[in-house]
Amino acid sequence: MTEVNPAFVLQSIKNVSFENRDIPKLRDSHDVRVHIERTGICGSDVHYWQRGRIGDFILTSPIVLGHESSGTVVEVGNKVKNVKVGDRVAIEPGVPCRYCDHCRSGAYNLCADTVFAATPPWDGTLQKYYIVASDYCYPIPSHMNAEDGALVEPVAVAVQICKVANLRAGHTVLVFGCGPIGALCQAVAKAYGAKKVIGVDISSSRADFAKKFAADGVYVPQHDSSPPAGPVEASRAMAEKIVAEFDLGEGADVVLECTGAESCIQAGIFAAKKGGTYVQAGMGKENVVFPITTACIRALNVKGSIRYTTGCYPAAVDLVASGKVNPRSLITHRFKFENALEAFELVKKAQEDTLKVVIQGVV
Amino acid sequence: MTEVNPAFVLQSIKNVSFENRDIPKLRDSHDVRVHIERTGICGSDVHYWQRGRIGDFILTSPIVLGHESSGTVVEVGNKVKNVKVGDRVAIEPGVPCRYCDHCRSGAYNLCADTVFAATPPWDGTLQKYYIVASDYCYPIPSHMNAEDGALVEPVAVAVQICKVANLRAGHTVLVFGCGPIGALCQAVAKAYGAKKVIGVDISSSRADFAKKFAADGVYVPQHDSSPPAGPVEASRAMAEKIVAEFDLGEGADVVLECTGAESCIQAGIFAAKKGGTYVQAGMGKENVVFPITTACIRALNVKGSIRYTTGCYPAAVDLVASGKVNPRSLITHRFKFENALEAFELVKKAQEDTLKVVIQGVV
Amino acid sequence: MTEVNPAFVLQSIKNVSFENRDIPKLRDSHDVRVHIERTGICGSDVHYWQRGRIGDFILTSPIVLGHESSGTVVEVGNKVKNVKVGDRVAIEPGVPCRYCDHCRSGAYNLCADTVFAATPPWDGTLQKYYIVASDYCYPIPSHMNAEDGALVEPVAVAVQICKVANLRAGHTVLVFGCGPIGALCQAVAKAYGAKKVIGVDISSSRADFAKKFAADGVYVPQHDSSPPAGPVEASRAMAEKIVAEFDLGEGADVVLECTGAESCIQAGIFAAKKGGTYVQAGMGKENVVFPITTACIRALNVKGSIRYTTGCYPAAVDLVASGKVNPRSLITHRFKFENALEAFELVKKAQEDTLKVVIQGVV
Amino acid sequence: MTEVNPAFVLQSIKNVSFENRDIPKLRDSHDVRVHIERTGICGSDVHYWQRGRIGDFILTSPIVLGHESSGTVVEVGNKVKNVKVGDRVAIEPGVPCRYCDHCRSGAYNLCADTVFAATPPWDGTLQKYYIVASDYCYPIPSHMNAEDGALVEPVAVAVQICKVANLRAGHTVLVFGCGPIGALCQAVAKAYGAKKVIGVDISSSRADFAKKFAADGVYVPQHDSSPPAGPVEASRAMAEKIVAEFDLGEGADVVLECTGAESCIQAGIFAAKKGGTYVQAGMGKENVVFPITTACIRALNVKGSIRYTTGCYPAAVDLVASGKVNPRSLITHRFKFENALEAFELVKKAQEDTLKVVIQGVV
Repeated sequence: MTEVNPAFVLQSIKNVSFENRDIPKLRDSHDVRVHIERTGICGSDVHYWQRGRIGDFILTSPIVLGHESSGTVVEVGNKVKNVKVGDRVAIEPGVPCRYCDHCRSGAYNLCADTVFAATPPWDGTLQKYYIVASDYCYPIPSHMNAEDGALVEPVAVAVQICKVANLRAGHTVLVFGCGPIGALCQAVAKAYGAKKVIGVDISSSRADFAKKFAADGVYVPQHDSSPPAGPVEASRAMAEKIVAEFDLGEGADVVLECTGAESCIQAGIFAAKKGGTYVQAGMGKENVVFPITTACIRALNVKGSIRYTTGCYPAAVDLVASGKVNPRSLITHRFKFENALEAFELVKKAQEDTLKVVIQGVV
Repeated sequence: MTEVNPAFVLQSIKNVSFENRDIPKLRDSHDVRVHIERTGICGSDVHYWQRGRIGDFILTSPIVLGHESSGTVVEVGNKVKNVKVGDRVAIEPGVPCRYCDHCRSGAYNLCADTVFAATPPWDGTLQKYYIVASDYCYPIPSHMNAEDGALVEPVAVAVQICKVANLRAGHTVLVFGCGPIGALCQAVAKAYGAKKVIGVDISSSRADFAKKFAADGVYVPQHDSSPPAGPVEASRAMAEKIVAEFDLGEGADVVLECTGAESCIQAGIFAAKKGGTYVQAGMGKENVVFPITTACIRALNVKGSIRYTTGCYPAAVDLVASGKVNPRSLITHRFKFENALEAFELVKKAQEDTLKVVIQGVV
Repeated sequence: MTEVNPAFVLQSIKNVSFENRDIPKLRDSHDVRVHIERTGICGSDVHYWQRGRIGDFILTSPIVLGHESSGTVVEVGNKVKNVKVGDRVAIEPGVPCRYCDHCRSGAYNLCADTVFAATPPWDGTLQKYYIVASDYCYPIPSHMNAEDGALVEPVAVAVQICKVANLRAGHTVLVFGCGPIGALCQAVAKAYGAKKVIGVDISSSRADFAKKFAADGVYVPQHDSSPPAGPVEASRAMAEKIVAEFDLGEGADVVLECTGAESCIQAGIFAAKKGGTYVQAGMGKENVVFPITTACIRALNVKGSIRYTTGCYPAAVDLVASGKVNPRSLITHRFKFENALEAFELVKKAQEDTLKVVIQGVV
Repeated sequence: MTEVNPAFVLQSIKNVSFENRDIPKLRDSHDVRVHIERTGICGSDVHYWQRGRIGDFILTSPIVLGHESSGTVVEVGNKVKNVKVGDRVAIEPGVPCRYCDHCRSGAYNLCADTVFAATPPWDGTLQKYYIVASDYCYPIPSHMNAEDGALVEPVAVAVQICKVANLRAGHTVLVFGCGPIGALCQAVAKAYGAKKVIGVDISSSRADFAKKFAADGVYVPQHDSSPPAGPVEASRAMAEKIVAEFDLGEGADVVLECTGAESCIQAGIFAAKKGGTYVQAGMGKENVVFPITTACIRALNVKGSIRYTTGCYPAAVDLVASGKVNPRSLITHRFKFENALEAFELVKKAQEDTLKVVIQGVV
């Protein structure tokens, strides 16, 4: 009997189904085939499912979902040197073109021709087998399990955010958001020797988790019975409260904004010290009211972080392998492959107590 | 007869007068006294005159106006080594505290205790004699005249903007604004080996000047009879037109925003290439609608530039002395000291054909 | 009875004595007077004692020795804001001129006019009272004792070395030397999230200490019965052994050379990966045989570290206060002030089991 | 009659011959075939011819010589987007593996698996047709001739050297060597806005050329009738003379060493200012006596430059196309393809008046 390749496919908006596809073939001699073991669900997977697009990426034909995965190498092309059959690996989900100026200059996260798992028109990893370039597979040590391997992905996102922030030992770091990315940024910042890491979230249960996970302190904005005149002033007031409560002096050295919420973006600018760095990592509204004069007068460095660059995945594997960051404790729910739809339904609800949801691979 | 020190004093909002003050004394052994020869008028001088405040700096007692000046050293403290009596100098108008962390780390433009000429409560340079720390005086060569010396100030502002932008040879540079600062940024960019420098201004006469002064090309936004839906989309359309017209590929390597206008800020973000740098130098509204998602996805570096840092003044003197930048051609009007009020009235009108206005010192 | 200021004075080469000097006075309104509590002895103190010079610094008149000190503030000038009488402080021993380009650009370690404790012609800290600029005093928390405070100095040296190296989380770091500076560099590197830190020393007792103190591994070069042809080849062979033994791949990301020994300098270059960074911190012979072609082909960054820059002392205080670095365990011997000469005699012997020697202050 | 591909082949040490080879085929869909029009000769070509090796690259089978070439694209693979048949291009001679960490991080000059023209075992460009990856071909505008195109290569070498040096507008730059690479570094430095560029060469005719070509000043070391004690002291004395003669203050901001000569390496370190940058670009002896203590105390940045990185070729094309750098004036001799051996014999002689020698392609 011929082996098949079960896949969880987004056929069209709000319409998913399981398919048995053919076993995929290596496309070139640098490729490997990975037997997928665990896949974490990310908000973008749910977004494509419900909306069919993110920015310029529009679903026009069916794609397999999923992009946070680990697995075992089962086939290697003849030029592959870094992994061999049997290696357990974390998979970096975007493989760039290698030919454009962004790729050639080390900024492959900006490559317009990246093949990114579960981003139209490219298939993702929620299938038994996945084909990927070998240099985008990273061996994980035996004491890391498949869940750890899958969650290397959000750790790598946090590593890139901290890299963009030029985060250094001794920095004071303010992180807006205590969901998976925010909490992992807090943990990476601590592992990098940050002096003080403060998390902010409107959910006190998420904030509580963050406090146990890595943060030195957390802040939960309260409803203000007599708010300042106007939303920007309210954001400034929140920033001033945070700076005062956590003794951040002139402001935080580094602000990592992982929510995309307008009030957090504003508060982040007001909470940064002169000459400090603010990184936009979360995405919400396309355009926000932004305190540009404050950013200018304080000579801030406002930067955007997107995806990962060279070194992020190895760093993330090391952080998990060394125990400095423990992403497994973010997992609140686990599903079998055949129950993938349930997993997606759960993530869609966006409940306070749902952090990371992981789907097992096809055995 | 005792010599006096005539000064042009802002007594209170909209209220200026001439005073004969005492000859000022050196405050410490690093100070020098400079006989002021020329002073350029800057928008901030007019702003204090008309409004009495800029941000947190509020006029509460009379101050002498003026901060773009050159002159001749007439007295030196006993620890002064870099200049001597008779030297002709350009004066950097802000002397920082030298003791705070910003000063100690080379970011003295962020020092909160800077004594800045014509910024409340500090007196400016529109007086016969001005006392300043010797290391904030920069000798100018004999072939630079006093006007060149005074205009070292706006050149230094442009140098700092280009430094913040990390502007390098080979860059494509888009500058919003063709007034004095914008035009000087364009000239400094060319002197630094920029590949292509484009200026943008709503005034075609300013744009024409910029084209002759330094820019490789200029763009004058036209009234759009069928504008896109909403102001941000209009800004995006303007950006796309500029990028297309001047063949900027994926966008400009560097965007220098010298107007503070909301539409230019938005267009600047949309016109920057992925991984590019945008510098906010102009100041207008405190808060603007800002395309934060574009800034994030493109991994832009958005930075603010304020004042000057070490090396800006020497670089500016060199640029003028070598003829690479010729700020004197920005001067459209000249006034005698006793006609300073006329000069201020002219600048207040902000006419299209008024670029730089210079006031002679007291002989 | 008038209070006196006992001091341990280097009168001339090899000639020290105790003196009762006058209580020193504040020189300006930013100064403070510190009652010295502990002083560590550094090789340079001994060097001046025995040789009377280091480089261009030549003993021509008596100086008080000592520069690694902590104490309690007993008097403050009227402009002092950062400390108050009674504060316990670590003292940064070099106060720069604040006026030269190096100072103004944040590289005050390069200031030629620095007043550096115990460097001719400037007095050091082995006296009851020491006058220093307040911004070069750093408060220490109550759980740090006076020994911790004195040893902030060598920690700050290590912080600067790691800063020059641009040392980041995830780096592999090879440190030549397991004496106080080498061992502290290893500890700082670990605190900064280095992936693997290897120490090298010819003394196995020092290497053993380093292993317990912070290093992930240590290497003790062995006598080679059949050495390669020539000293440079022997150094290359040592480098290759280290790289192989500690699985450093293409070489270490960062090499910190804290011995000044010619063979270590050579081995350090050979052990650095392509594109890696090598920092020269130790000083020995003026000139050495150096593998320049290897440095060139590997595109290494070879840098020198000297003294400290802004932020080093605060970072060092934090590292000690947080327990990430524990310099107190480096102390092998303690002496009373009146036995300072014994302390110096001990350090002069440079025995393997002498790491850090500390002298108590005058009560 | 089948078309052939004439090639100038290094068969073994000191043994070259012409061969008619088969027309080479594209290896993959990103490749192009270029009809070579001009090839400059570089010292390394002659080195392989005479010695059969450079470092670890050893001639073990015949290779075609030549790597500084321009030509016309005559065939393109089906994924090629940046060039088309008929385009005139400059060819970057090294195509990296695209898969290793160096490639992925933008440092492809460090890739160990680079296919580099005329470096064993890879064929060079002294043949009628050459196959190369399309993204390593750079179109040149019609006003650049084939010689200009071939000499983009040494210009790109100079661009990389200046990039490694972090050379900025306003820098003072001291360049050891006035041969092609040294002179081009001087020209690139001027194009980048360097304040003062000084060339050093023992040949006064080369120095004279450099003065006309780009340098602000040149220095020709003279025989010293009463030299200081020892070669390092002589180098220091030379450095001090240069610094004094050209008024370089504390030393040059940037030193570019393009000779590999031991005395120049030493003098370069002594002539660099504190905190300055020294780049080793020339290669001579493997090991030299090096003033390591001076490098350390002055906190120098000593770096090696090798090959080119992303952006160097486009920058070099722009510099030539804009007329800012005119490498054609370096050409002292031209040969037809069939006289290639004569060209090599001439370069081997290394006469003072031989700068750049160019060989025409097969028509």
